[in-house]
Amino acid sequence: MKFYTEYLWFNTEKRREYIRITDKIKAALAKSDISEGMILVSAMHISAGIFVNDFESGILEDIDNMLEELAPFGPDYKHHLTGEDNGDAHLKSILVHHQVIIPVTDKALDLGPWQEIFYAEFDGRRRKRVIIKIMGE
Amino acid sequence: MKFYTEYLWFNTEKRREYIRITDKIKAALAKSDISEGMILVSAMHISAGIFVNDFESGILEDIDNMLEELAPFGPDYKHHLTGEDNGDAHLKSILVHHQVIIPVTDKALDLGPWQEIFYAEFDGRRRKRVIIKIMGE
Amino acid sequence: MKFYTEYLWFNTEKRREYIRITDKIKAALAKSDISEGMILVSAMHISAGIFVNDFESGILEDIDNMLEELAPFGPDYKHHLTGEDNGDAHLKSILVHHQVIIPVTDKALDLGPWQEIFYAEFDGRRRKRVIIKIMGE
Repeated sequence: MKFYTEYLWFNTEKRREYIRITDKIKAALAKSDISEGMILVSAMHISAGIFVNDFESGILEDIDNMLEELAPFGPDYKHHLTGEDNGDAHLKSILVHHQVIIPVTDKALDLGPWQEIFYAEFDGRRRKRVIIKIMGE
Repeated sequence: MKFYTEYLWFNTEKRREYIRITDKIKAALAKSDISEGMILVSAMHISAGIFVNDFESGILEDIDNMLEELAPFGPDYKHHLTGEDNGDAHLKSILVHHQVIIPVTDKALDLGPWQEIFYAEFDGRRRKRVIIKIMGE
Repeated sequence: MKFYTEYLWFNTEKRREYIRITDKIKAALAKSDISEGMILVSAMHISAGIFVNDFESGILEDIDNMLEELAPFGPDYKHHLTGEDNGDAHLKSILVHHQVIIPVTDKALDLGPWQEIFYAEFDGRRRKRVIIKIMGE
């Protein structure tokens, strides 16, 4: 049984960004020397997410628009009584989910033809971390 | 350490369908000869989802109604500038999530009394795939 | 390869509650004697959820408010034709997701500085169960 753990760091320029990280996951898998197993890709912050979808700028904008409609940036969150202004980012993280599992088959990410892995930053301009943990053989 | 991988294919008649797949996961587990571990059930397309809920037609309709309210089928998505018409299906996939993990204990799916596994098709009438990956001993 | 399985029971006083369970997951990990691996924490009922977020009362209230806006408690669900009154709880479970995976590194939960694990009860005042399944070495 083999394990491989790696941490990715992000520090985005904008408050919200969607960053394709598929190649970073592939690179981690290559270093792990694991040919069958599962890769956990999980945001380590509560105002970020991980998702799998299409690498197409329009749909990334649509995702952002939907999230902004369901959990808008704004002042009216109870969380802001603590002095924070990122209540919306926590809620967006809940809706998108903060992690995915990528199956590994025959030394490769076992993804469908259009599946790409994204880091979703909902409260950027600070250093944030993602864990990649691979378990298998 | 044992691994078992299987792919399910779907080609629904309707644009949106919710299909119970619990028995297919049980059958895969039986073939795997794994008695302790985890099963990843993951849609391989970005306009589909996997979820665990009740096998009751009313609640499946309620889920569909909620998703159609939060991410309605319609023309006004940026993604449609590519010629596609399924922006809503991508967003529904984000909200439902595209995968679940089923625990395996003593050779059985370790599910609660009402938990059933569903494939959620959001843009059907074409061939789509789901991966079942079992890891354990 | 090692496995450890434990079940947590809940019986909340209120219909909806958000209960921090990070310490229970830590205790399970200690008993498992596993130093590298993954922990599945998964609700075994279809009207409950598991999520990772901030242990701060304001944000928990914000999460509840958002869920009540997107899937309100009320009479108008098809599911209620069965005699049930908890359609909203099923929908909230879909939106929050019913499970998370916690990575284990060097005998500890490999979480970010603010990440805490919560049980989300959406239809309480009855006995409900959560499975903790740890797999690793």
